[in-house]
Amino acid sequence: MRPSEIHKVKGILITLSGPSGVGKGTVISRLMELSPEIKHSVSVTTRPPRPGEIDGVQYYFTDKEHFENMINEGEILEYDSYCGHYYGTPRKPIVDAVENGDVTILDITVPGSLSVISNFPEAVSIFLLPPSFSELIRRLESRGTESPEVMQKRLAKAYHEIEMTQNFDYVLVNDDLDQTAGRILAISEAEKHRYKRLKGIEEALLKH
Amino acid sequence: MRPSEIHKVKGILITLSGPSGVGKGTVISRLMELSPEIKHSVSVTTRPPRPGEIDGVQYYFTDKEHFENMINEGEILEYDSYCGHYYGTPRKPIVDAVENGDVTILDITVPGSLSVISNFPEAVSIFLLPPSFSELIRRLESRGTESPEVMQKRLAKAYHEIEMTQNFDYVLVNDDLDQTAGRILAISEAEKHRYKRLKGIEEALLKH
Repeated sequence: MRPSEIHKVKGILITLSGPSGVGKGTVISRLMELSPEIKHSVSVTTRPPRPGEIDGVQYYFTDKEHFENMINEGEILEYDSYCGHYYGTPRKPIVDAVENGDVTILDITVPGSLSVISNFPEAVSIFLLPPSFSELIRRLESRGTESPEVMQKRLAKAYHEIEMTQNFDYVLVNDDLDQTAGRILAISEAEKHRYKRLKGIEEALLKH
Repeated sequence: MRPSEIHKVKGILITLSGPSGVGKGTVISRLMELSPEIKHSVSVTTRPPRPGEIDGVQYYFTDKEHFENMINEGEILEYDSYCGHYYGTPRKPIVDAVENGDVTILDITVPGSLSVISNFPEAVSIFLLPPSFSELIRRLESRGTESPEVMQKRLAKAYHEIEMTQNFDYVLVNDDLDQTAGRILAISEAEKHRYKRLKGIEEALLKH
């Protein structure tokens, strides 16, 4: 009898947040290269598809009424609106991925992450910090192009986001890409084996 | 500025429990081969040293009065007595190892682990399960030598220990030695980055 026949190990939903410029996107790309079990979450939007966009690939496309129904029925873990259109994270594909043992990572804002946690308490939240605030300023400045006013606003936002670190389960200093990716894989592996995710495993096992 | 200069990552105390025959000792030996940061905890005892035993190596040796003082002052994380002598886990070497970034793993009974957790709440508790109860019976029987009565007692004890799984943070099915050791290393790595162990890191970082 294989342990998986006694009690299935479920997957995990991980939210990854952090200030602009900390490198969330690069970390997620590296994770997807490193581990085939890391899945990308497709958002749902009320924006009309652009030529060539396929429903379920770039986005799930829907209308405003259906999106608002989904919100009311708890089918949207977090959402925001931009230019008159909703963008949100649908619950069902994530529930299916968790059942299937997969790991879904969401690159998400701080309020988005807090919203996911309140709607999906099994989620694991990670906050990515820069090695130092001065390093974050350097990274944002090296992108160039911004006016000093926009830059000042971005830094103030980053400062306030960093102050929210305490709301997260885990905190990683993104000093080295591979080290950060490795730590996220360790968190994902560890979390799968928390007793709260395996409740009842001992009763199942005592019967075999 | 290196992140370690802003905020030091501390080590962890891990308790490893599970029924007799589940393979705790083998797992710990494998862990110590795999990772130089895994440290062995030396127990303190009131039993007199045997010829060749060195204080601080096999045990820390002390007398009954001092041991009882250590208990009263919270300097013993858990203890038991056997043949009129105390055996216990001293707090100080573990606190020092945690400060130093090392991982200490204790191979410990279920009540011992619960006692460590109550005296050292930062500890991480892992329960090791056999692949199935029938497999545990097979492993215990293959050791031979026991009378049917002793065997029956051992199995009843194992059954009750397995029922205590829910008191632990993590549960691992010890189906494959290297997989189990790898999962313990992942738990150790993940736990070091929990926000609760890094409180204040964001304030330190915002100053740099």
